[in-house]
Amino acid sequence: MQKIKAAIIGYGNIGKYVLEAVQNTPDFELTGIVRRSPGASKPSELQAYPVVASVKELPHTDVAVLCTPSRSVEKYAGDILNLGINTVDSFDIHGDIWNLQQRLDRIAKDNKRVSVISAGWDPGSDSVVRALMEASAPNGLTYTNFGPGMSMGHTVAVKAVPGVKAALSMTIPLGTGIHRRMVYIEVEKDHDFDTVAAAIKADAYFVHDETHVMQVQDVNALLDMGHGVHMIRKGVSGKTQNQQLEFSMSINNPALTAQLLVAVARASMKQAPGCYTMIELPMIDLLAGNKEDLIRRLV
Amino acid sequence: MQKIKAAIIGYGNIGKYVLEAVQNTPDFELTGIVRRSPGASKPSELQAYPVVASVKELPHTDVAVLCTPSRSVEKYAGDILNLGINTVDSFDIHGDIWNLQQRLDRIAKDNKRVSVISAGWDPGSDSVVRALMEASAPNGLTYTNFGPGMSMGHTVAVKAVPGVKAALSMTIPLGTGIHRRMVYIEVEKDHDFDTVAAAIKADAYFVHDETHVMQVQDVNALLDMGHGVHMIRKGVSGKTQNQQLEFSMSINNPALTAQLLVAVARASMKQAPGCYTMIELPMIDLLAGNKEDLIRRLV
Repeated sequence: MQKIKAAIIGYGNIGKYVLEAVQNTPDFELTGIVRRSPGASKPSELQAYPVVASVKELPHTDVAVLCTPSRSVEKYAGDILNLGINTVDSFDIHGDIWNLQQRLDRIAKDNKRVSVISAGWDPGSDSVVRALMEASAPNGLTYTNFGPGMSMGHTVAVKAVPGVKAALSMTIPLGTGIHRRMVYIEVEKDHDFDTVAAAIKADAYFVHDETHVMQVQDVNALLDMGHGVHMIRKGVSGKTQNQQLEFSMSINNPALTAQLLVAVARASMKQAPGCYTMIELPMIDLLAGNKEDLIRRLV
Repeated sequence: MQKIKAAIIGYGNIGKYVLEAVQNTPDFELTGIVRRSPGASKPSELQAYPVVASVKELPHTDVAVLCTPSRSVEKYAGDILNLGINTVDSFDIHGDIWNLQQRLDRIAKDNKRVSVISAGWDPGSDSVVRALMEASAPNGLTYTNFGPGMSMGHTVAVKAVPGVKAALSMTIPLGTGIHRRMVYIEVEKDHDFDTVAAAIKADAYFVHDETHVMQVQDVNALLDMGHGVHMIRKGVSGKTQNQQLEFSMSINNPALTAQLLVAVARASMKQAPGCYTMIELPMIDLLAGNKEDLIRRLV
């Protein structure tokens, strides 16, 4: 079997879980890890792999799994596609996905390579479920309820409020796409908790949601990478009302994102040149194994 | 907008719901209905459409929606593909899907047309969810729990038992893919209920399941086309255990099947020639509307 040769770009939280996923995936082989400071102390789990500053320094690589912040995805993806290497990422700024896709599509086609963007669980597998639910009952409403789990975006917003030393913002689902924000903070010396809490509640990230702010001694003691989602659609098939569909997950967030990145890296090897989101990929292409076995087992 | 011109082949239960789905789908236009006895009395809802004995008698048709029993799908699909018309069906004999696909793939490619087989909810949308769940957590178990709802196959098996005048077999989910069979029968005169019930429980369709047989005065009074499914996977993403995913539906069975047949009929217009199952189709192709709107709204 010809293995898929993958590189990991960025070695933060997602990168670590992508390493584990690749190690547990028989049809993949890791060519190396790209880090901004490759000379820094090498963690024990990376001893067996090249750790370099650029994908150019690695042996032949088919696909690069981008584990960088969303804001730097476009730069990395463009550069790596221009080297003739497929890219996959979990770009999660919903409003910017279409424009990113248009720009990377041109670069991918120019290089006869494939890029899969916004792969993970939301955007990603949730997007696939939303599309399938809408195909099943075209008229109606889908609600996506997140949590309980940590919101990265909201946590970063809290940390930017003056007087906040450390923070965690949890997303709690209240149904029909409405969420409660539970915010846990350590307060800087010489700051008043009530003043800081009021500033958080007035922030654009929180002002429209039910928000509770609590002071704690140690935010680190509260951290948990578990997350969840509950999607529900009630709609109409043909002229038949009240068709009800639900999807839910309770998962380790970065582990699921990493596994789906590896699955779309596999799928990237089977698509015509261009840039794709997960709803544009046949689900069978995400899976290892031959077509006959998969169809006999799953259809 | 150029509408997709569809014909309905067979006008039983599924055919009636496909008519409703096509009527409620703005990008479709119905060219007519093919029935074995087109001269028979025309129901009021068909007055506006040609009802004929062969698709050859209809105006130009892009795609034929086969609403015939599974056993006659291959003959109809082959003949209609040979006329240069795409076909879609809800062939549901799981063990025969792969071989049917191989045979129709050749015919579809010879005619440069597309066939989508085994489209509905199981096989169909459930197959897509099974594939997505496995991509999300490759090691682990998926259980598909059906019901409560009528099982066509089991009901037919009961009707074949001597002494059974009318029957309904309901599938009740007990979890981990185990099902209880609740069988309601009318007994023929001169037959003993206990003897008939014992024969049903000894039938190959029932002998391995917990089966309860009850005598009723009027099976028709019990009929309901509601059905459901609950799929659950617990598995491993990378090296992270206990990832939990669930999908469930409570639906009108033929209405959902019909709606998904219309969705794959749309998708058939966008694929390269060949024969496909739903896990081989990108979900975006099932939906009406332009790509930018769909990606902005669903991803």
